[in-house]
Amino acid sequence: MNYKIVARFLSILAFTITASLIFPLFWALADGTEDASAFFLSALVGTAISAAFFILGKGAKKEDLGSREAIAGVAFSWVVASLIGCMPYIFSGYIPSFTDAYFEAMSGFTTTGATVMRDIEPVPRGILMWRAQTQWLGGMGIVVLVIAMLPLLGVNMTQLFKAESPGPSLEKTYPRIAEMAVMLWRLYMGLTVVSALLLVAGGMTLYNAIAHTFAAVSTGGFSTHNASVAYYDSAYIDYVLTFVMFIAGANFNLHLAALRGRSFRPYKDSEFHFYTAVALGATLMICAVLLRDGVFKNFFQALRYSLFQVVSIMTTTGFVTADYGKWPMFTQLTLLALMLLGGCAGSTAGAIKCVRFQVVIKESIAELKKMIHPNAVVAIFQSNGTANPSMVASSACFIATFIIIWGVSSLAVSLCGNDIVTSISAVSATLCNVGPGLADVGPVCNFAEQSAFAKWIYTFDMLCGRLELYTVLVLFSRDMWRK
Amino acid sequence: MNYKIVARFLSILAFTITASLIFPLFWALADGTEDASAFFLSALVGTAISAAFFILGKGAKKEDLGSREAIAGVAFSWVVASLIGCMPYIFSGYIPSFTDAYFEAMSGFTTTGATVMRDIEPVPRGILMWRAQTQWLGGMGIVVLVIAMLPLLGVNMTQLFKAESPGPSLEKTYPRIAEMAVMLWRLYMGLTVVSALLLVAGGMTLYNAIAHTFAAVSTGGFSTHNASVAYYDSAYIDYVLTFVMFIAGANFNLHLAALRGRSFRPYKDSEFHFYTAVALGATLMICAVLLRDGVFKNFFQALRYSLFQVVSIMTTTGFVTADYGKWPMFTQLTLLALMLLGGCAGSTAGAIKCVRFQVVIKESIAELKKMIHPNAVVAIFQSNGTANPSMVASSACFIATFIIIWGVSSLAVSLCGNDIVTSISAVSATLCNVGPGLADVGPVCNFAEQSAFAKWIYTFDMLCGRLELYTVLVLFSRDMWRK
Ligand SMILES: [K+]
Ligand SMILES: [K+]
Repeated sequence: MNYKIVARFLSILAFTITASLIFPLFWALADGTEDASAFFLSALVGTAISAAFFILGKGAKKEDLGSREAIAGVAFSWVVASLIGCMPYIFSGYIPSFTDAYFEAMSGFTTTGATVMRDIEPVPRGILMWRAQTQWLGGMGIVVLVIAMLPLLGVNMTQLFKAESPGPSLEKTYPRIAEMAVMLWRLYMGLTVVSALLLVAGGMTLYNAIAHTFAAVSTGGFSTHNASVAYYDSAYIDYVLTFVMFIAGANFNLHLAALRGRSFRPYKDSEFHFYTAVALGATLMICAVLLRDGVFKNFFQALRYSLFQVVSIMTTTGFVTADYGKWPMFTQLTLLALMLLGGCAGSTAGAIKCVRFQVVIKESIAELKKMIHPNAVVAIFQSNGTANPSMVASSACFIATFIIIWGVSSLAVSLCGNDIVTSISAVSATLCNVGPGLADVGPVCNFAEQSAFAKWIYTFDMLCGRLELYTVLVLFSRDMWRK
Repeated sequence: MNYKIVARFLSILAFTITASLIFPLFWALADGTEDASAFFLSALVGTAISAAFFILGKGAKKEDLGSREAIAGVAFSWVVASLIGCMPYIFSGYIPSFTDAYFEAMSGFTTTGATVMRDIEPVPRGILMWRAQTQWLGGMGIVVLVIAMLPLLGVNMTQLFKAESPGPSLEKTYPRIAEMAVMLWRLYMGLTVVSALLLVAGGMTLYNAIAHTFAAVSTGGFSTHNASVAYYDSAYIDYVLTFVMFIAGANFNLHLAALRGRSFRPYKDSEFHFYTAVALGATLMICAVLLRDGVFKNFFQALRYSLFQVVSIMTTTGFVTADYGKWPMFTQLTLLALMLLGGCAGSTAGAIKCVRFQVVIKESIAELKKMIHPNAVVAIFQSNGTANPSMVASSACFIATFIIIWGVSSLAVSLCGNDIVTSISAVSATLCNVGPGLADVGPVCNFAEQSAFAKWIYTFDMLCGRLELYTVLVLFSRDMWRK
């Protein structure tokens, strides 16, 4: 491992995060609130961190950038970003504890949206904009760093993004990392502008439109209201956000291909079909149970609330328009299952991802066929050709590893006196980067009451989930640090 | 699919089950209780079923036995056995509803040990012996049919048993199915006799010693007392049963090899080591938490109860000596995780099995290595050589399929108004063939209050879990029934 090149990369990252403090500072200065000084102090700390990494990285050469350096660079990006990101919370005094502030910052940068704030509305707009912006930066990090950078370095875990990308292989279309990163960045930026305009058209103030857009396109889910999106009680806003979340939870490579070809054909993708079918199927089931149990009397109202909650949870956004903690058990368990499923590979959504489940289901069906015809060769297909055995093993192991981390984390946080539903759903909500869970961490609750030990477990889970597990787990390998 | 050969096999099976009614009948006649007539009526029904299959199977030829016929024969064995097995419950009037009686019979034959009986002690000894005996027959079915028969037919799912069996491959040691089946049967019989003698030595009546032995060697877990094994309040009996359950949860091929070679060397097996390590590790963790929270004051008492509960749950037996529903959350979640893990492949234990987790954990570590060295070839090893990619994919897909069935079943039973912990743990308890779960189906509760719809889901899950999923799932494939 070459530490210098990693340090240089982190120095650039720290500088970028620090520079981005300007945007929330603008709102603080406009309002004349006391959080402006917190941003200045944070910028000082951020600059110091950036400078320290710059000195450590002196003499780094571009040729030293290998897989290990890329992995370490990506993983520590989130750790360092959160270190700078938690400063405004601490300096402004709105989240004085370091554990809490770091949790909140990591929750933002990993686009989780789990909060330790009990009461959001009295917090000044600068701080809340910073909180919203961390998600947007984190989402961009996923889109640019993870989707564009790692596959080109041949990192195994991202085989799936490549296998699923439509049309000619991405390496051929974009021979250079930089070119592809720029394309993805433009797409992300475009989606942000469109979403903000649509929300302003629905009567949101510019400030709230930007904050909710930041949360939606990154599938982060932080709101500026205690009641989340339910505050607006507007069908128009609900449907606009549903649409934006749905787009953000789909593979960005599909959107790129569709925009370049000015055609919907790229959406004829097996994962996208699965994603759409599950979202619609779950919505109809939940809608039916809500009507049966009389939670809503009107079909269209039931549809609106089920669709919003399903898309919000499945894309791992975590916006809330109804207190689903009071809904029938079946609907709560369905939402818990959707948390684990997640959106598409190559999106800003977290969790296991549709394509992995799809490959595993196809392989299981192939296994059944092999039982009946022991000597037959049974191949399984995804949009872009055959899924090879190593891809199947990789997907299935990912699911199993995910379940193991989920189980071990649930055990650990149950040690702090949480009940079973709180333990399991809090870990699901953080590991899958959703945000709200059930019971004590449900849609109308927060993580403030959790113990410090549990909060660090959640912080680790958020990072783990966001970086597809292996990027974080590999840091514990001796091989990673050798030489 | 050749129906005739399957029918002939089921005719022999139905006859065997019917003939075995003699043993409980003996106790009923000895006590002079009214259940004797129920056994005569059940024998009539059993004979009729056997005769019907005999007529359907006329003209069957041995050469027609292929994979599909073997799979259908095994899967329907449990369905038909439970159909005969539920008769004594219905005719004696102790479980009048067909749904309930079939649930109880399937629970016995699948060695699950989940019960719908609210009060066991007033039930006559004949009926309770039949209930205990169904487990013993089911356990023998697993040992003889599944371990001996399916691998020799080249059925893919049992690759694991072969890969894990120590010494020269089983095919070479036992060229004929019959020979290996006889060896396994003798081993199972021997373990039964030893266990019964040890329990009688501890002061149990012969009747109770036999009934509890039937439940222990098959990892079934039905007791003749409402308080289960806690009734005896004897450290000696606790430790004897812990030992028997531990043996029954280990790979029977290891025991066979050890007995034949008069050596402990076969136990130097990677899965057996994992199994032992997890059991001891979980015991110590639970013991520590019980002492910390003051559930027990004395270390040796805490050890005795944690060890018993851990081995009972991990081997999927489900005997109970303490109401762990009142233990700290951490210990309950640990037990829930152990349920899903289960014992060793090639044992009478249910659930996912240690070896599958082990292969997946090793593969995940290999994936981490591949991330660091993208061009390296990383092989993973089990006791008997390299685990090939198809074995890894198979194990990982099994876990994923298990989790999917678990999730879907939990969703289905939550529709009946169960809370989340009851839904999840009832499905775990039945799908993993453990018996007791948590909350409404906890160690001091039963399945009587569950709705009929939920009971059929549990019945299906018991069968699915017992037959390693695929043997049941494949029945839903069109390919299975063609020709
Ligand atoms: K989120
Ligand atoms: K059992």
